[in-house]
Amino acid sequence: MDTRDRLIESTRELLWERGYVGTSPKAIQERSGTGQGSMYHHFRGKPDLARAAIRRSADELRDRAEDAFAGPGTVVERIGTYLGRERDALKGCPVGRLTQDFGVMADPELRRPVEETFAWLIDRLTGLLAEGRASGELDPGLDPANMASALVAVVQGGYVLACAAGSATLYAQAVGGALGLLAGHVR
Amino acid sequence: MDTRDRLIESTRELLWERGYVGTSPKAIQERSGTGQGSMYHHFRGKPDLARAAIRRSADELRDRAEDAFAGPGTVVERIGTYLGRERDALKGCPVGRLTQDFGVMADPELRRPVEETFAWLIDRLTGLLAEGRASGELDPGLDPANMASALVAVVQGGYVLACAAGSATLYAQAVGGALGLLAGHVR
Repeated sequence: MDTRDRLIESTRELLWERGYVGTSPKAIQERSGTGQGSMYHHFRGKPDLARAAIRRSADELRDRAEDAFAGPGTVVERIGTYLGRERDALKGCPVGRLTQDFGVMADPELRRPVEETFAWLIDRLTGLLAEGRASGELDPGLDPANMASALVAVVQGGYVLACAAGSATLYAQAVGGALGLLAGHVR
Repeated sequence: MDTRDRLIESTRELLWERGYVGTSPKAIQERSGTGQGSMYHHFRGKPDLARAAIRRSADELRDRAEDAFAGPGTVVERIGTYLGRERDALKGCPVGRLTQDFGVMADPELRRPVEETFAWLIDRLTGLLAEGRASGELDPGLDPANMASALVAVVQGGYVLACAAGSATLYAQAVGGALGLLAGHVR
């Protein structure tokens, strides 16, 4: 990793360990083994660095989700791939957990990539569910937008349950329940 | 509010705003308008105070959930009451968001009430769904434990989506989607 990457990765770690308010420029320099001059050569300051760290997490989430959504299979199979994909459930969602960080939510510039990521995710899933409804794969009475929100919520809430229990099994249970519920709407 | 209550409420606010690591005994004293001597008269220190604050949030969540579960109506109606109940979705779940606080999760004494609350909630809902299955209200193929985890996850993830969008509508959409999914399993 080059210096810029090390700075971004260290900021991602510290955001999780200490939250935005608790993360100091000094701590970022120490964690990344970078001097103050070098940090300010690459970034204007902590907010700029946090924005880059959050954008990287958001881009990764989006790329991984799109891999599942654009993959092979029926709509329900592709949603199953997305929900069932291996996740480090005990670390929480790198994007979702930022919504529970007061410092991130209070800054519009830091909140924007978080907001955009979930808006994209729900919109993408809504389109996929509408496609499944139009093709006759899914129940015509199904509401794609509500269903998409519920499915994304299961993933985010699955992280919360796994963290609370200290066990990834809870994530798998929540996803299993969601797929069981969805199965009742396949024609 | 008496001094003890003020200390607990101030700690709850600060845990949300700054996280556990970022909350100092001094900040708690300032927020609550309490002197150091008075704080240490009521609590042994910050961990003791945080434990009381977390236990209070956990007890409130449990009491409110039990009100819905033990209320009138069919199993699906009672679950609908629980999911649809008015919540301050933009503040996040006072218990669930602690799972995304590294400082809370790293301390077994602080994590325990969080873990116990979700274990109780999933267990209570599992029993309710099993009751609905046994009475013939719900599809016999339904897995109560998985379904219960999915429903609790929708609530927790609904908070995440509402916070991300800055709008409680997303919470309502996720809950609407979950109830729509559940409706497909009513006989």
